[in-house]
Amino acid sequence: MKFPKPYSLKEISEIIGSEFVGDADFPVLGMNEIHVVEKGDIVFVDHPKYYDKALNCDASVVLINKKVECPKGKALLISDEPFTDFNKLTQFFAPFTSANAAVAETAEIGKNTIIQPNVFIGNNVKIGENCLIHSNVSIYDNCIIGDNVTIHSGSVLGSDAFYYKKRAEGFERLLSSGRVVIEDNVDIGASCTIDRGVTGDTTIKEWTKLDNQIQIGHDTVIGRKCQIASHTGIAGCVVIEDEVVLWGQVGVISAITIGKGAIVYAQSGVAKSLEGGKTYFGSPAEEARTKMRELTMIKNLPSLFKKNKGK
Amino acid sequence: MKFPKPYSLKEISEIIGSEFVGDADFPVLGMNEIHVVEKGDIVFVDHPKYYDKALNCDASVVLINKKVECPKGKALLISDEPFTDFNKLTQFFAPFTSANAAVAETAEIGKNTIIQPNVFIGNNVKIGENCLIHSNVSIYDNCIIGDNVTIHSGSVLGSDAFYYKKRAEGFERLLSSGRVVIEDNVDIGASCTIDRGVTGDTTIKEWTKLDNQIQIGHDTVIGRKCQIASHTGIAGCVVIEDEVVLWGQVGVISAITIGKGAIVYAQSGVAKSLEGGKTYFGSPAEEARTKMRELTMIKNLPSLFKKNKGK
Amino acid sequence: MKFPKPYSLKEISEIIGSEFVGDADFPVLGMNEIHVVEKGDIVFVDHPKYYDKALNCDASVVLINKKVECPKGKALLISDEPFTDFNKLTQFFAPFTSANAAVAETAEIGKNTIIQPNVFIGNNVKIGENCLIHSNVSIYDNCIIGDNVTIHSGSVLGSDAFYYKKRAEGFERLLSSGRVVIEDNVDIGASCTIDRGVTGDTTIKEWTKLDNQIQIGHDTVIGRKCQIASHTGIAGCVVIEDEVVLWGQVGVISAITIGKGAIVYAQSGVAKSLEGGKTYFGSPAEEARTKMRELTMIKNLPSLFKKNKGK
Repeated sequence: MKFPKPYSLKEISEIIGSEFVGDADFPVLGMNEIHVVEKGDIVFVDHPKYYDKALNCDASVVLINKKVECPKGKALLISDEPFTDFNKLTQFFAPFTSANAAVAETAEIGKNTIIQPNVFIGNNVKIGENCLIHSNVSIYDNCIIGDNVTIHSGSVLGSDAFYYKKRAEGFERLLSSGRVVIEDNVDIGASCTIDRGVTGDTTIKEWTKLDNQIQIGHDTVIGRKCQIASHTGIAGCVVIEDEVVLWGQVGVISAITIGKGAIVYAQSGVAKSLEGGKTYFGSPAEEARTKMRELTMIKNLPSLFKKNKGK
Repeated sequence: MKFPKPYSLKEISEIIGSEFVGDADFPVLGMNEIHVVEKGDIVFVDHPKYYDKALNCDASVVLINKKVECPKGKALLISDEPFTDFNKLTQFFAPFTSANAAVAETAEIGKNTIIQPNVFIGNNVKIGENCLIHSNVSIYDNCIIGDNVTIHSGSVLGSDAFYYKKRAEGFERLLSSGRVVIEDNVDIGASCTIDRGVTGDTTIKEWTKLDNQIQIGHDTVIGRKCQIASHTGIAGCVVIEDEVVLWGQVGVISAITIGKGAIVYAQSGVAKSLEGGKTYFGSPAEEARTKMRELTMIKNLPSLFKKNKGK
Repeated sequence: MKFPKPYSLKEISEIIGSEFVGDADFPVLGMNEIHVVEKGDIVFVDHPKYYDKALNCDASVVLINKKVECPKGKALLISDEPFTDFNKLTQFFAPFTSANAAVAETAEIGKNTIIQPNVFIGNNVKIGENCLIHSNVSIYDNCIIGDNVTIHSGSVLGSDAFYYKKRAEGFERLLSSGRVVIEDNVDIGASCTIDRGVTGDTTIKEWTKLDNQIQIGHDTVIGRKCQIASHTGIAGCVVIEDEVVLWGQVGVISAITIGKGAIVYAQSGVAKSLEGGKTYFGSPAEEARTKMRELTMIKNLPSLFKKNKGK
């Protein structure tokens, strides 16, 4: 998320009530999570294991729970609770605003786009031309939808990331301020759910086609010309490259990559990154021919046990 | 379900048109299924296998299809079709009432709670303070929602139990008169479905967090501080104890218990009760390390077959 | 799909801008896919592998990408792109019409049927008597619903078939003009999605009961008195015969048949047709007792490896 204008380090430190290390006038342009952070952004880190990564990434300001040495050309915000203070910034720069109308006045809707009854379109949503948004769809604030997009009934774009920090009394949610971005010529089936990014975008690239009841987690990027069948669930921060085919009821764990043109058979569970151009099956998923060979061997176990009987 | 006032045994027998055994003035306070029944309640039983259990449970009145001996201090209702007559009572005491408005006049909504557009809130629903109910959510009659609860778009609270009795011509549905009870600080993702109890409550206890597209069956109780990932389905009458973690696409069969702190990996199928404090995987689910060992052995089958070749 | 009146072969050829082989006055009554085609209909074929099947099926007119010999009593439409030209006919005879009201004026709703708030009912929908349509349900144009049907909140009837042809730039969707037909005494849970047929019907026969979050693909036929548990996904062109039971999270591949009275356990993946009267389990599904035997053998692998140690 970029701020509406540059803020000084001092101003930011006052919003969250923290100390800072660096020039009071150091310019701060936005805030992001580490995998999407850019120059000028704040990133947060609260575990020593990730200090180095955070201090050396593209972020210009590190919101951190220890007074470490400040890298050259950067600044620090020192906080006991970086997670909570990152949320404070989200609440300051992107507070939740309730809707006054089912289709917000600030929504921009392109020509020849049809919005069916009972659709909710939040604040600052942009929808392109020649789209068809079927009844009972919900599109949260700030989502961006391209041209020639069809969204079937009951689908939800822009729900919050499922991302919590355990606390003594329960859980603290990492607040979401990101968007869902749907490119041109995408079709989304009925009752799909697509969470928005925490600070960045959840993106579905052009020509990709989703069947019904698909779940896509926050900050995930689905490539071009993918086909995804129903009841498939993709966790957060996943990268699906172009022309991937996921059959029905596939599960994909968070923060992995599925390579270009991979095909994953139904009900597979993808628990690690997969090379492109190959076909996979099983839970956990492995190359389909390996899995098929295993299934054949399991079928042949009775003869093996027989041979070993009485030993 | 408790009746609005005590009824006499005779009055109840007249509602369903049955004989009774016991004092005509015997007070009847409510009706419930056997796992939630209390003193003063009617319970029904229509299979000899369960007669003893029904006659000896906490119910004061047993609606039964045989003139058995009446336990001391209790009463009987004799019916050819206890299932159907139980439904008659539900229809008498809790008939379905259609809604006149998207948000019923009888709904109570706490302060600072935001209801987004296109939400349906049924009769006698209570929602606490500081809640955020996103667009296109449906909350059926009588549901109870605590404070600081977020419900994302498209979720459904209070749909009927999936519970049928086979009949010659088709199926007879057991009518639902129960509620969904959501405690404080619960988050519910987008497009979740939570069925109400048949006569009791489906309960989600405080601080529990649900991802998107989760299904929870009737009369199920989810403990405190649980985390449940998307596309997980939990059948009816399940008890999930506190601090349980269910990853994505897990299935849980009806009427079992998952112990405190258990972790169940993605795509597992839980077919029997699980002890707390352990980690599980597989369909059917077993301890994760056992399952992992089995997967390793399956990978080593080629060498085993080779060794046994030619025997 | 039947046309509103018979068209001549010449008129049809002008709509799509193609050549024709046969009598200019040859009467054309409708258009259908090969598995539902009838006398008088157009069928399309674009792959030599299927030419014979298309030329010899019940269709009277074959829309084909090669000038083959015309079968006696039939006619041909010659087109470089039969798929695209079939879509042109769908757009001509069944163009998408946007809705002016949440419940279309042309919808017919039987007596004693209750429509809860925020329901969408499209053009020319017919709903029988004594139905209960809960809030936030979406019913697309032309769907037919019988008597005594309950549909829970968030369900979607009539979304488009998930059926695409790969093109150089992306995908071309096969346009849907079919219907969803729900017979008497069917119950549909919350957040189910049922796609309409491409040119024919997706049908759920009387007394069948669906739990929540079920997906049913285009042109699939579900028999009488079936019970289907939540999160089950059934692809397109499937035939489920009467009295089949599918437990939760089952997946069924396209274009197969599950025989009468079959029972499929939870999380099974049905990848080929199944004989009726038997019980199945596993992904891929096999007879349950076979699968159970395999699971037992896998549990006994440690002893087998031990016996073969050191060989």
